[in-house]
Amino acid sequence: MPLVRISLLKGKSRAYRKAIQDGVYQAMREAFDVPEDDCFMLIDEYKPSNFIYSHSYLGIIRDDDLAIIQITANNTRTLEKKKALYARVVELLAENPGVRPENIFINLVEVQKENWSFGNGIAQYG
Amino acid sequence: MPLVRISLLKGKSRAYRKAIQDGVYQAMREAFDVPEDDCFMLIDEYKPSNFIYSHSYLGIIRDDDLAIIQITANNTRTLEKKKALYARVVELLAENPGVRPENIFINLVEVQKENWSFGNGIAQYG
Amino acid sequence: MPLVRISLLKGKSRAYRKAIQDGVYQAMREAFDVPEDDCFMLIDEYKPSNFIYSHSYLGIIRDDDLAIIQITANNTRTLEKKKALYARVVELLAENPGVRPENIFINLVEVQKENWSFGNGIAQYG
Repeated sequence: MPLVRISLLKGKSRAYRKAIQDGVYQAMREAFDVPEDDCFMLIDEYKPSNFIYSHSYLGIIRDDDLAIIQITANNTRTLEKKKALYARVVELLAENPGVRPENIFINLVEVQKENWSFGNGIAQYG
Repeated sequence: MPLVRISLLKGKSRAYRKAIQDGVYQAMREAFDVPEDDCFMLIDEYKPSNFIYSHSYLGIIRDDDLAIIQITANNTRTLEKKKALYARVVELLAENPGVRPENIFINLVEVQKENWSFGNGIAQYG
Repeated sequence: MPLVRISLLKGKSRAYRKAIQDGVYQAMREAFDVPEDDCFMLIDEYKPSNFIYSHSYLGIIRDDDLAIIQITANNTRTLEKKKALYARVVELLAENPGVRPENIFINLVEVQKENWSFGNGIAQYG
């Protein structure tokens, strides 16, 4: 059920974007109780003037490999689960495609279970 | 007040996209207490590698006509209203432009009434 | 920590988009308790058929200079803060790049502090 929006600077290869997608999905599977095959993601690619980020906020050094990952998910996870998700996304994306940990920005938007319809006009979790 | 983000694969005609927009608006009018003329929608069109979805999650068979519809709206609707909205969107989009019910993915993000300014720097519902 | 999505019609100059970005950031700094250098924004530019808005909802006259600004931020602000933010965004964007107050649409999506990771896989505010 998570709906994931991944924002990147333009110019990353298809393999790079696929690795980001796969890593986020695997992290959600392992650390965030997301069911198998529950994968809905949109990737937006920006030109530099439309992709604005702080290069050093909180002392974290970001560059043009920054990935901004906004995940809308059910409001059923504990703080520990959220922390585990952040850590696992960073680990997996460091392995492949090789994103520095400082370049992973994650934001969770939480909703009620009844706020999803996966098809057929039914609230499958409602 | 809803702000609607509709995500589609690239390649749909203008008439197709207009029918999606009109159907979602009509469903919100009929089933979700949205006032007349309260219509704010953004349509994003994706290339296949950036539009990632499960083809069978929950046994629902999706294909490249999938429409991912994310609606940010006030947190004032009951579960029954939400269910009515999902069902009505599916009905109307099945009629025109002819989207299969399994290809309609809907997610609601709820906010407080005071979280909107429709212009002039004022919280019109606050 | 706010993540800001700004949606505009295609065709605005780089200077115009930069002025929007700077005005929203300055307003968040002055009126919304956003720390210095905490600036993460994505600008999406739409063709007319994908940028749908009411030209007169609530008696507010909008035109093709409409800016739809969706801000995801912590749920720590009072109603007064929100009102101050709306008003300040409108003031600053009226000065530069010269957007009419009726053309500023703002929506806030609120989340918990623990819902952010600014890098390194850590919940910095958690």
